[in-house]
Amino acid sequence: MSRGSSAGFDRHITIFSPEGRVYQVEYAFRAINSTNLTAVSVKGNDTAVIAVQKRVPDSLIVAESVTSVYQISPTVGCCAIGLIPDAKFQVKRAQSEASNWKYKHGYDMPCELLAKKMADLNQYYTQNAEMRSLGCALIFISYDDEEGPTVYRVDPAGYFRGMKGVSVGVKQVAANSFLEKKIKKKSDLSSSEAIELAIEALQNSLGIDVRAKDLEVVVVSKENHKFTKLNNDQVEHHLNQIANRD
Amino acid sequence: MSRGSSAGFDRHITIFSPEGRVYQVEYAFRAINSTNLTAVSVKGNDTAVIAVQKRVPDSLIVAESVTSVYQISPTVGCCAIGLIPDAKFQVKRAQSEASNWKYKHGYDMPCELLAKKMADLNQYYTQNAEMRSLGCALIFISYDDEEGPTVYRVDPAGYFRGMKGVSVGVKQVAANSFLEKKIKKKSDLSSSEAIELAIEALQNSLGIDVRAKDLEVVVVSKENHKFTKLNNDQVEHHLNQIANRD
Amino acid sequence: MSRGSSAGFDRHITIFSPEGRVYQVEYAFRAINSTNLTAVSVKGNDTAVIAVQKRVPDSLIVAESVTSVYQISPTVGCCAIGLIPDAKFQVKRAQSEASNWKYKHGYDMPCELLAKKMADLNQYYTQNAEMRSLGCALIFISYDDEEGPTVYRVDPAGYFRGMKGVSVGVKQVAANSFLEKKIKKKSDLSSSEAIELAIEALQNSLGIDVRAKDLEVVVVSKENHKFTKLNNDQVEHHLNQIANRD
Amino acid sequence: MSRGSSAGFDRHITIFSPEGRVYQVEYAFRAINSTNLTAVSVKGNDTAVIAVQKRVPDSLIVAESVTSVYQISPTVGCCAIGLIPDAKFQVKRAQSEASNWKYKHGYDMPCELLAKKMADLNQYYTQNAEMRSLGCALIFISYDDEEGPTVYRVDPAGYFRGMKGVSVGVKQVAANSFLEKKIKKKSDLSSSEAIELAIEALQNSLGIDVRAKDLEVVVVSKENHKFTKLNNDQVEHHLNQIANRD
Amino acid sequence: MSRGSSAGFDRHITIFSPEGRVYQVEYAFRAINSTNLTAVSVKGNDTAVIAVQKRVPDSLIVAESVTSVYQISPTVGCCAIGLIPDAKFQVKRAQSEASNWKYKHGYDMPCELLAKKMADLNQYYTQNAEMRSLGCALIFISYDDEEGPTVYRVDPAGYFRGMKGVSVGVKQVAANSFLEKKIKKKSDLSSSEAIELAIEALQNSLGIDVRAKDLEVVVVSKENHKFTKLNNDQVEHHLNQIANRD
Amino acid sequence: MSRGSSAGFDRHITIFSPEGRVYQVEYAFRAINSTNLTAVSVKGNDTAVIAVQKRVPDSLIVAESVTSVYQISPTVGCCAIGLIPDAKFQVKRAQSEASNWKYKHGYDMPCELLAKKMADLNQYYTQNAEMRSLGCALIFISYDDEEGPTVYRVDPAGYFRGMKGVSVGVKQVAANSFLEKKIKKKSDLSSSEAIELAIEALQNSLGIDVRAKDLEVVVVSKENHKFTKLNNDQVEHHLNQIANRD
Amino acid sequence: MSRGSSAGFDRHITIFSPEGRVYQVEYAFRAINSTNLTAVSVKGNDTAVIAVQKRVPDSLIVAESVTSVYQISPTVGCCAIGLIPDAKFQVKRAQSEASNWKYKHGYDMPCELLAKKMADLNQYYTQNAEMRSLGCALIFISYDDEEGPTVYRVDPAGYFRGMKGVSVGVKQVAANSFLEKKIKKKSDLSSSEAIELAIEALQNSLGIDVRAKDLEVVVVSKENHKFTKLNNDQVEHHLNQIANRD
Repeated sequence: MSRGSSAGFDRHITIFSPEGRVYQVEYAFRAINSTNLTAVSVKGNDTAVIAVQKRVPDSLIVAESVTSVYQISPTVGCCAIGLIPDAKFQVKRAQSEASNWKYKHGYDMPCELLAKKMADLNQYYTQNAEMRSLGCALIFISYDDEEGPTVYRVDPAGYFRGMKGVSVGVKQVAANSFLEKKIKKKSDLSSSEAIELAIEALQNSLGIDVRAKDLEVVVVSKENHKFTKLNNDQVEHHLNQIANRD
Repeated sequence: MSRGSSAGFDRHITIFSPEGRVYQVEYAFRAINSTNLTAVSVKGNDTAVIAVQKRVPDSLIVAESVTSVYQISPTVGCCAIGLIPDAKFQVKRAQSEASNWKYKHGYDMPCELLAKKMADLNQYYTQNAEMRSLGCALIFISYDDEEGPTVYRVDPAGYFRGMKGVSVGVKQVAANSFLEKKIKKKSDLSSSEAIELAIEALQNSLGIDVRAKDLEVVVVSKENHKFTKLNNDQVEHHLNQIANRD
Repeated sequence: MSRGSSAGFDRHITIFSPEGRVYQVEYAFRAINSTNLTAVSVKGNDTAVIAVQKRVPDSLIVAESVTSVYQISPTVGCCAIGLIPDAKFQVKRAQSEASNWKYKHGYDMPCELLAKKMADLNQYYTQNAEMRSLGCALIFISYDDEEGPTVYRVDPAGYFRGMKGVSVGVKQVAANSFLEKKIKKKSDLSSSEAIELAIEALQNSLGIDVRAKDLEVVVVSKENHKFTKLNNDQVEHHLNQIANRD
Repeated sequence: MSRGSSAGFDRHITIFSPEGRVYQVEYAFRAINSTNLTAVSVKGNDTAVIAVQKRVPDSLIVAESVTSVYQISPTVGCCAIGLIPDAKFQVKRAQSEASNWKYKHGYDMPCELLAKKMADLNQYYTQNAEMRSLGCALIFISYDDEEGPTVYRVDPAGYFRGMKGVSVGVKQVAANSFLEKKIKKKSDLSSSEAIELAIEALQNSLGIDVRAKDLEVVVVSKENHKFTKLNNDQVEHHLNQIANRD
Repeated sequence: MSRGSSAGFDRHITIFSPEGRVYQVEYAFRAINSTNLTAVSVKGNDTAVIAVQKRVPDSLIVAESVTSVYQISPTVGCCAIGLIPDAKFQVKRAQSEASNWKYKHGYDMPCELLAKKMADLNQYYTQNAEMRSLGCALIFISYDDEEGPTVYRVDPAGYFRGMKGVSVGVKQVAANSFLEKKIKKKSDLSSSEAIELAIEALQNSLGIDVRAKDLEVVVVSKENHKFTKLNNDQVEHHLNQIANRD
Repeated sequence: MSRGSSAGFDRHITIFSPEGRVYQVEYAFRAINSTNLTAVSVKGNDTAVIAVQKRVPDSLIVAESVTSVYQISPTVGCCAIGLIPDAKFQVKRAQSEASNWKYKHGYDMPCELLAKKMADLNQYYTQNAEMRSLGCALIFISYDDEEGPTVYRVDPAGYFRGMKGVSVGVKQVAANSFLEKKIKKKSDLSSSEAIELAIEALQNSLGIDVRAKDLEVVVVSKENHKFTKLNNDQVEHHLNQIANRD
Repeated sequence: MSRGSSAGFDRHITIFSPEGRVYQVEYAFRAINSTNLTAVSVKGNDTAVIAVQKRVPDSLIVAESVTSVYQISPTVGCCAIGLIPDAKFQVKRAQSEASNWKYKHGYDMPCELLAKKMADLNQYYTQNAEMRSLGCALIFISYDDEEGPTVYRVDPAGYFRGMKGVSVGVKQVAANSFLEKKIKKKSDLSSSEAIELAIEALQNSLGIDVRAKDLEVVVVSKENHKFTKLNNDQVEHHLNQIANRD
């Protein structure tokens, strides 16, 4: 973007520039990359999976307290990439929406509706002058009794989509094109294949081999609707599978 | 527009420039083209139809989750072109207006009143400093027991009109002039003719042959007042008709 | 107006410039011409009439949905020239004021009071920082049991006047001076004369012969207090009368 | 005033400039002259009178609907010079204050209190940032059982005074100095003398002979406490008296 | 003050400049001199007196309606110098505070508390962004059963003091230094001496001999706690005493 | 401070500059010196004392009405140095806090809590955009049954500390370093020693010998918990003691 | 940071710059160093400890009233480094959150939840335009029955983390890298080792030997869940241990 063309329009939260753009929203997208993380999510036949880098910024931090994946409700999981405080704010909001739904309707909030609701809230921030947009992107996964596994992406502009696979974060362009290539070849993925594709796409986009301890992998599946985090050995196993395959 | 003449007036949401223009509204119109889609609607004798490009931005997106057409009430359909989050906001608002009407009056909200209401809300945003205008244009179709098929266009400035045919989006100028030419020759259109004219106008404005899967075609008709989406085969059939005719 | 002399005063809605002017109101007046229409109203002995151009901007628009004249109450009619969404806002407001009056007092709101009320609302917008002025001018006509036919003009500054004849819109200067000349010669007008003077003034100001279908002519009269739109044949008849007279 | 010395202070409604001036109030005074009218009021022994130019801006306006004098309550009359919509706003406010008083106290609001109240409201506008000052000056006349005839002047700054005679409007300087000279010679004025002095001062300040139809003359007197407008013949009579005297 | 050093700080009502000054308050002080009047108050043994210029700005004004002294409660008097509408606002506020006190406590509000209250209100305006400071200074006098005569000065910054003598207004520097000199010599003043000292200080500061009709002299005393205005003869008498003494 | 580095940050009340400073608070500190006074407080074994200059700005002021020391509650005294109206505002607030406490808890508000509360309020003003900080510093003294004598300093930034001795005002740097030197030598002070140290520090910082009438000396002590002002003779006595000692 | 690139974005509290940064938050971080203090916290096996410099800015201050460590609840301690009034505000808020929790749930608020809550509040300040961020960083320590000792760091951006060891303040970079080196070698720390590591890291970062009286050392441990401050002798003992070890 040439700075010259913004001419002050980027300092007013909720107005259009002459080109019909809302700059503040675009800047919020850049804030997503500030934590320098990438997440990849893949939808298999019976499984939805998120693989995300885990980087403990310094060795003094209690490693267990660092995570990018959150349980929103028993059956919905979320990965939030971007400004960490903004991410926590979004996660808390999603949890609150989900538990209100449960209380009101007596059953878990469907993942699509939750993703839609979060997107609506983001849209509102782009329209209203009072609050800034939140600098983080969200991936929601869930196993739906009717739809099977589902993956949704929600961004600061209020845009949300169901996805077969998706990456958000600093290396998302590379990871997404890797996913596209692979899924075009074979979109019919078993549980292991889905998990390994997610990990592989992440490794590929980063250009390095990731160790099990630098990864968070969470799955929901037909067998286990509950949002579950793979343990180190399980991740190790999948990493070996990938290595052996090559 | 020469930038020089705006002189800061374009950064204040609800004030007039010396030429009597409200710039922010004009910029909202430009935001309509940001998704690079075009929709065409045609009113036949017994049918109203919307044909709109469907473009799944990347192959990872679950194709079914991408749409520009929405059911507002059992008998009113809507096509929203522009910033997607803004479009969803408008659709939700229209649905809410329609269901409130039903609840209050016991019958479906007439399409004209719904379009008028949405236009009024848009006008309000142009006058009030609190919220920006929404960057999307709307087409409403419906089959009215008395009026027959109806097509309405609503824009960010709060302008709405009943139309015989109309196009909104990035290629609307070409599509509208195509429609004008054709409808001038023959405005008395059977159901098939209406559907095919809408598709043809869309193809013509884009300068390419559209495939059935890149199109969403929705109709309301005398036989079936319900807002109905044509399936792939039906669209294919109409595309063949067009091709054969040429 | 020399731009130099405005020096920023024109960007603050409700403050005076050193010359004692409120610029935003003046710019609102310019917005009146944005639809490029002209209306002429004439008060006869027993009739008040409005003749206004009808221009369907493109042939796709359902011609019946385009109008500049609105019924406010059974006995009050209105012509609104300017930004169409603003015009609709004003008309809705006037209708609401009129029906509230009827409900509260049990009889129709006198046209003068309605015009005064609308002018008061416009004045308020010029004084208050929250809302911009509305870019449209209004003509109200009515037949009053005591006063006979009445014509009122209301503008964005909140100024209103009873008129013998008046034109608003892009050609108002020419039309008004035509009216002045004619009414000075003969102010005692029969119903036909009033209607034909209005049409003639409009034609004269536009410098072209208008066809019946490009005109909306509405009247209230002693015989028929109700706001009535002339049909095409009636308008045709008066156009012929004018042509023959010349 | 040199523009250089205002340095932006004149664009902030309710702040002082370094010279201790509130510019916006001063600009409101200039708006008073925008209608280019002058009014003169004189207090006689038993009569208070206002003479004000009546200028129908164009011949199409129903002459009866143009006036600068308003009845506020049965015994208080008012002349408002300045921006007409602002003037109407002030008059309505004064009428409302007066009728509230009557309702609450059971007797007519004394003219002095009414003038004081209007001045207080004007002062408030100069202090508060929300609303601009109103661009019009007011003269109130009344016949008080104890005080006799009274004349009050109220201006946009919130200043009000009882007067023996006063002029407001574009020629007020000339008219006031004429009044001063005459009243210094003879302040003990019969009813006719008061009326004629007001007319004479107006004529003198305008430098032309005014015709009866270009004048509004209203009086309150010992015999008739009610605010009364002289008819054309009565005004004519006084004009002749003046002419004969010279 | 050098204009360069204000650098925009003077346009923000309630912020400090780098020098720790609140400019808007200082500008309010300059507004005090806008009416070009001076008042002098003196506290004698049993009397408090205010002498203030009375200048009827033009001969058309009813002289009785021009005053700078106001009764706040039966026992408290006030002189307000500065922008007249602001002065009236302050006087009304003080009257309202005093009558509320009487209603609540059953006895007259002590002058010191009233002065303190008015000072507190002024301080609040300097701290809060909503309202500008009021451009007038106040002198309160009263006869207190315990304290004897009291004189208080209140200014726009919210500063108030009990005084032996004080002058406010355009010539206050000269008048104050005159008072200081005289009171240093003799502070033990009889009623006549106090009155005459006040008048003399006023005359001295103006550099002219004031006539009785150009003066307002008000007193409260041991004999008469009520705020009383001297009549012309009484003032004349004191003027003669002063003249004879010289 | 170099003006260049502030670059507009000092005109926004509650934002940080790039250096992490809140300029408006720093400017409030400068306002403290505007009255050109200095106060010194010392904590002895059984006594807390404040000595503060008393300067009656001009001889017309009733000397008794000038003071910088205020009783907040029967056992807490306060000295406020800075803008006098701001000081009065703070004192009134402290009195109100103290009396509310007494009402709620049945015993006097401990001095430390009162000082803390006032500091909290000051902090709030630095964080919130609505109100400016108050330009005055406060010293609180009290005799606490458990703690013995206590001295607290509260500043506009919301900082408060218990002190052995402290000076605020225009000469505070000199007075504080004098106190430090003396208290380092001997911190175990009898009542007389404490009083005389406070006076001496004040004299030393001013570089002049102060007369009894130019001083306000207030004490609280083990014998008399009540906030007590020394009379002239007592102050004289201590001044002599100091003089003799030298 | 190059000043050129901020271009005014740093003066708007809650908007993004084109680089996706929120400048005001970054400036708040700089305010943390304004008190020039450093704190170090270490988590041992059974103990959590905070060691923080104590610097009494001048010898007049009652040393006991200077502290950077606060008890939030019986089992949670806090160290706050930064603008002292902001620190007190945060501490008070944390205390209030903790006691509300206790009242509502009947047991002490877990340290992690308290830290999370404070982080959420900080995040909110970065998003909302009304209040500035607070210029201080917080360390919370606690002994949890299940988790054992815990250490949390909370910063103005709303970021919080569980830590094995952490330093905040002006020398935090040096102290943190010292901690990392040491904890990498040996993370299994007895109570004494934890305390001494904290002190050593602090000494090392400051580059000087600290005396016992210049240190505040607080611990929570398995034996004593209560937040306890070591006395001078205990600190002395640990300092000797460190010295002997070298």
